[in-house]
Amino acid sequence: MDTNLQDYSHKRFNILTGEWVLVSPHRSKRPWQGQNETISNEIRPTYDPNCYLCPGNTRINGEKNPDYKDVFVFTNDFAALQVDSPNFSFNDGLLRAESEQGICKVICFSPDHSRSLADMKVDDINKVVRVWQKEYISLGSNDMINYVQIFENKGAVMGCSNPHPHGQIWSQSSLPNEVEKKDKQQENYYSQNNSSLLGDYLKQEVELNERIIYQNDHFVVLTPFWAIWPFETMIIPKKHYTDIAQISEQESLAFADSISKITKAYDKLFQTSFPYSSGIHQAPTNNKQNDHWHWHMSFYPPLLRSATVKKFMVGYEMFGSPQRDITAEQAVERIKENLEV
Amino acid sequence: MDTNLQDYSHKRFNILTGEWVLVSPHRSKRPWQGQNETISNEIRPTYDPNCYLCPGNTRINGEKNPDYKDVFVFTNDFAALQVDSPNFSFNDGLLRAESEQGICKVICFSPDHSRSLADMKVDDINKVVRVWQKEYISLGSNDMINYVQIFENKGAVMGCSNPHPHGQIWSQSSLPNEVEKKDKQQENYYSQNNSSLLGDYLKQEVELNERIIYQNDHFVVLTPFWAIWPFETMIIPKKHYTDIAQISEQESLAFADSISKITKAYDKLFQTSFPYSSGIHQAPTNNKQNDHWHWHMSFYPPLLRSATVKKFMVGYEMFGSPQRDITAEQAVERIKENLEV
Ligand SMILES: O=P(O)(O)O[C@H]1O[C@H](CO)[C@@H](O)[C@H](O)[C@H]1O
Ligand SMILES: O=P(O)(O)O[C@H]1O[C@H](CO)[C@@H](O)[C@H](O)[C@H]1O
Repeated sequence: MDTNLQDYSHKRFNILTGEWVLVSPHRSKRPWQGQNETISNEIRPTYDPNCYLCPGNTRINGEKNPDYKDVFVFTNDFAALQVDSPNFSFNDGLLRAESEQGICKVICFSPDHSRSLADMKVDDINKVVRVWQKEYISLGSNDMINYVQIFENKGAVMGCSNPHPHGQIWSQSSLPNEVEKKDKQQENYYSQNNSSLLGDYLKQEVELNERIIYQNDHFVVLTPFWAIWPFETMIIPKKHYTDIAQISEQESLAFADSISKITKAYDKLFQTSFPYSSGIHQAPTNNKQNDHWHWHMSFYPPLLRSATVKKFMVGYEMFGSPQRDITAEQAVERIKENLEV
Repeated sequence: MDTNLQDYSHKRFNILTGEWVLVSPHRSKRPWQGQNETISNEIRPTYDPNCYLCPGNTRINGEKNPDYKDVFVFTNDFAALQVDSPNFSFNDGLLRAESEQGICKVICFSPDHSRSLADMKVDDINKVVRVWQKEYISLGSNDMINYVQIFENKGAVMGCSNPHPHGQIWSQSSLPNEVEKKDKQQENYYSQNNSSLLGDYLKQEVELNERIIYQNDHFVVLTPFWAIWPFETMIIPKKHYTDIAQISEQESLAFADSISKITKAYDKLFQTSFPYSSGIHQAPTNNKQNDHWHWHMSFYPPLLRSATVKKFMVGYEMFGSPQRDITAEQAVERIKENLEV
């Protein structure tokens, strides 16, 4: 490892987005007098009569949840995207808008209100993975849908409004900004090298073994060289698959195992139910040539120093570039200490 | 105004960055059961013996602040950028990093601990503007510095760790991501049209008068068509100036007046000291041809529904695109109701 990267301010290049992150390794000693997050140490019941996601309960729109036993998916009652948004283009001088159609779903990971992915069994996480696959295929086969974004917001600090374990799927007619960037970077590389950008990166990382957190037969968990968030990680399939639907049943279990390992380590890190946004980036469902895509899952956790002090992406980060204090390599060491294998 | 834009999900194009924002006008009725911010209604003293920014107090590194009477600038004691970061390039297969040199400063807007820009006199805000100009010129004339980012984080919710009215300046050897984007978009337009992108946009907005909040002889305050944050605004000089150093003394006062008007309206909107990150984007100081730049100041406030409910940019926003619920036009109406003229 180049010691310059551990000692001096520098920027690192994100090969997937083509953007840079500013790294300030010397800055982690800065004292913190700003806002502290409140942590809820409340022990949640396995069933909460007031939770609109618990089995059997009635949601705001009057619909009643079934008495589900594992994973339950429904269309978001307050969807950000409308199926029936009329098709329009708005072009007036320098003002430009396009209609956007889409379908938003909510996916309850478990009937048990008290759980999170970190304390679910691998078999039960695997059921969630199977539903992600099913939804990717069925939403993607809709002519209107060209991209399917699977994600989870965990914890109040990440804007999650209900602690019941759940994630979301927003699928839509066009490619969102972040996907567009990754599409271009992967396509450029693939057309020049006839091999997967992320696959080649993964080989290099496994060889270097400086940022690898965990691996099993089919997946690697690592902190990317260009990570933005203090304890950001990525789960990458070893084989070059364009999307989550391509993995076998055995691979799906290995993926669930990877999710289990990293979320458990996160919870141990600061002895708290670790907040994050996670998401899967994968091939668009636009019927184009998407062989350049190598799907992956990322975790963006906000915490920096403790269960109550997060990294604020404000000011310079909004107007300039993302900035981080501890290096990716330092973060990997911390996460690995908390890994149970 | 096209009614489709007020009724249906759509995306709008940001001409300055080349990226899109997802707009969901129908979604503002969504109930909120998530995290509430705490607001401090604490009345601050004009002088706080424990504040490391108040006149005469000693900072963590042992230095004593002078007994300053208006604006006071010093080099950040915990700078994210180092002046003496050695010059290096790191290239190893798909890993790529570059050293980054820079100078970070803190700028106290007033000796009075209890104030913010919103309750400072226009003359006193103007003194801050004059210092911004001076710093842009002096930092920019340093061969090492190719971009000067002026910004403010206001409020604990925006990661501000000290309520004493202050902003920051991070100046550095390369162009940060957001500046790079705006540089490209403005350059393309300028080379094709031989006129300023933002200037032409401004003319169109003034004519339409749908998103204008306030104007005086030299500046316009508006919410851009592509605004991301619920109550985002921009202050744009009517004349095509590449940077803040080009404005006259009279224009500088008019700029201070615009800052005063919008920050006062913000404070009235939710009857709270309105949090935001603000920043000035202007021509790089890289000695290149930068005539395509039209400088401007933006405000990114996080609040959405009230003093305690903010918009979370998480999940979909991190993995997809920024998303907003109320439209820019609805926000303009709300801000205008709170404008004192
Ligand atoms: O420099 P400060 O005020 O200590 O820190 C604040 O502003 C910086 C620049 O926007 C951010 O990097 C920090 O996350 C934020 O807490
Ligand atoms: O959909 P929810 O959980 O109500 O809302 C949360 O996730 C959305 C998608 O990331 C965000 O747009 C919201 O700001 C956030 O509060």
